[in-house]
Amino acid sequence: MRIALDAMGGDHAPGPIVAGAVQAVAADPQLEVVLVGDQAQVEACLTREGGKPARVEIFHSSQFITMEETPVEALRKKPDNSISRCWQLLAEKKVDAIVSAGNTGAMVAGGLFRRRFLKNVRRPGIAAVLPSLRGPVVLLDVGANVNPEPEHLYQYGVMGAIFAKHILQRERPTVGLMNIGSEEKKGHDLAKETHALFNASPFRDQFIGNVEGRDIQRGASDVVVCDGFVGNVILKVCEGVFEFMMKMVYQEVVGALDAEKPRGAQALQNLVNRYDYSEQGGAPLLGIDGICIICHGSSGDRAIKNALALAAKYASTKLNELIVKELESSPHPAGT
Amino acid sequence: MRIALDAMGGDHAPGPIVAGAVQAVAADPQLEVVLVGDQAQVEACLTREGGKPARVEIFHSSQFITMEETPVEALRKKPDNSISRCWQLLAEKKVDAIVSAGNTGAMVAGGLFRRRFLKNVRRPGIAAVLPSLRGPVVLLDVGANVNPEPEHLYQYGVMGAIFAKHILQRERPTVGLMNIGSEEKKGHDLAKETHALFNASPFRDQFIGNVEGRDIQRGASDVVVCDGFVGNVILKVCEGVFEFMMKMVYQEVVGALDAEKPRGAQALQNLVNRYDYSEQGGAPLLGIDGICIICHGSSGDRAIKNALALAAKYASTKLNELIVKELESSPHPAGT
Repeated sequence: MRIALDAMGGDHAPGPIVAGAVQAVAADPQLEVVLVGDQAQVEACLTREGGKPARVEIFHSSQFITMEETPVEALRKKPDNSISRCWQLLAEKKVDAIVSAGNTGAMVAGGLFRRRFLKNVRRPGIAAVLPSLRGPVVLLDVGANVNPEPEHLYQYGVMGAIFAKHILQRERPTVGLMNIGSEEKKGHDLAKETHALFNASPFRDQFIGNVEGRDIQRGASDVVVCDGFVGNVILKVCEGVFEFMMKMVYQEVVGALDAEKPRGAQALQNLVNRYDYSEQGGAPLLGIDGICIICHGSSGDRAIKNALALAAKYASTKLNELIVKELESSPHPAGT
Repeated sequence: MRIALDAMGGDHAPGPIVAGAVQAVAADPQLEVVLVGDQAQVEACLTREGGKPARVEIFHSSQFITMEETPVEALRKKPDNSISRCWQLLAEKKVDAIVSAGNTGAMVAGGLFRRRFLKNVRRPGIAAVLPSLRGPVVLLDVGANVNPEPEHLYQYGVMGAIFAKHILQRERPTVGLMNIGSEEKKGHDLAKETHALFNASPFRDQFIGNVEGRDIQRGASDVVVCDGFVGNVILKVCEGVFEFMMKMVYQEVVGALDAEKPRGAQALQNLVNRYDYSEQGGAPLLGIDGICIICHGSSGDRAIKNALALAAKYASTKLNELIVKELESSPHPAGT
């Protein structure tokens, strides 16, 4: 298993990115990581981590795309940027997977530009994993496709269910459609048409109909599909509410304690570490021929290590072959 | 101040609805409440609350719309439903405001049906108030208008700012546009066009540009505008994350305590009472000629009492006159 890691992508790159890579190869003897980025900066980071491990390489790229840049423009203006180089290594089959905590739009655009879609897939979508009362829930798309067609959402449901089954070990994953009410006729045209498409598909037995915003954390379905605008907003709202509530709990619950304050503070810290939305270790861009994991911009070394482990697990379950096969019986496969 | 309250609307109606009305008139000597609903049921509830107070009346209606019914159909099939009767009392100027915790779609459709829009307003929108690190934030629309035009969102920004200023006492409220990135060219066409419209408007100095999901609870702007689909999802995601995190904190933080467990549990309960998204006391439908407050379906007596108090405050600040005046200088006022 060989992964290209964008060493320059992320709010704090390259420090924690390189550290995460070093930790990941130490934990997995099968893993090789190619750090893509400025050679001098990456080498300096490796030195701080105790030297370059045997299964870590550097692929020099002289440019990188910032978080603020407009994706398509930046990809064009900076041909030697680290994201494009990652996609190139994947296209040339020099790596099995690519991982970046950089500009999400540029990562997605890099993939769309090369059109390395899996057979039968109409549009790739980013799948995020969120915690719920009944275990992890897959939400997609969270930002690759802001103007999807019903067929795209249908395929997200199928791909998300395969991910839930093989990566999250759900026996027979259910899929819900994000909407603003449970009744079939609720919502905008996209929601109504997608609802009808699921119900007319071979996948209908796993489709539970509409779900609402509050159903995600209740775990009403294993997979939730929505357009990339709504999904991206959901993901970031979760992060905002989490951040807000954890601050309030620290102030008012831990703050109300006396002798047991350190114990309460530690328990809260454990909770934050477990559920921190910004440390979730990466969201796969499903539907790409290859493996592409997109991490939160603020990813630390732990998140990067988790993302590399996710890419390895993704490869070992042969998820892409399962997706191609399952979408053969899709009601509107690619090209129709 | 005279308010029609839909006694039959809400998951637990009429019990807590009637109780909230009794508490509200006890707290506000200027308030009169007309309970709209089944006379026998409402009377039974009033008896349980210690008898009918002097400033509470009953307006009998023989039908009501359930939470699951399709709004437009239900309004047509049940002419004597409590929601239509509330709107009728408002149209006939027999009350100054109406309040319901019933079917939101039916409440909105009832208003659209009568087209009682304020002058210069193109489409009414529901404004919800959410907590943030910098105090309350107004989010609109949260479900009245799932296919808005840019001009609608612009007007939501103006109306939301007036609400923030006069109801939430923000000196000079700022408005943000919900989007999936901070750059001007991000998002779908609606977002891009709305962004341009704000920047070309007399309101541009109060417009701070795009905000993302996580910015709401950070309090990046006093008002956040979005389409009704996205806003409804946001509102319910906030509720879901809140519910989930409070359960986790109870289990893991309060659960880790020993002698101080009761103290921790009480502090957490206080926090839940303060921020419970389902107890926020009602969201006004802004842009209606009159006052219309929509409450969460699960509203208890406290939420209903708060909603009645909000309606009274809304009337006393003459918010609607301010909205009409401000929208005169709108770049695309009604009818253009």
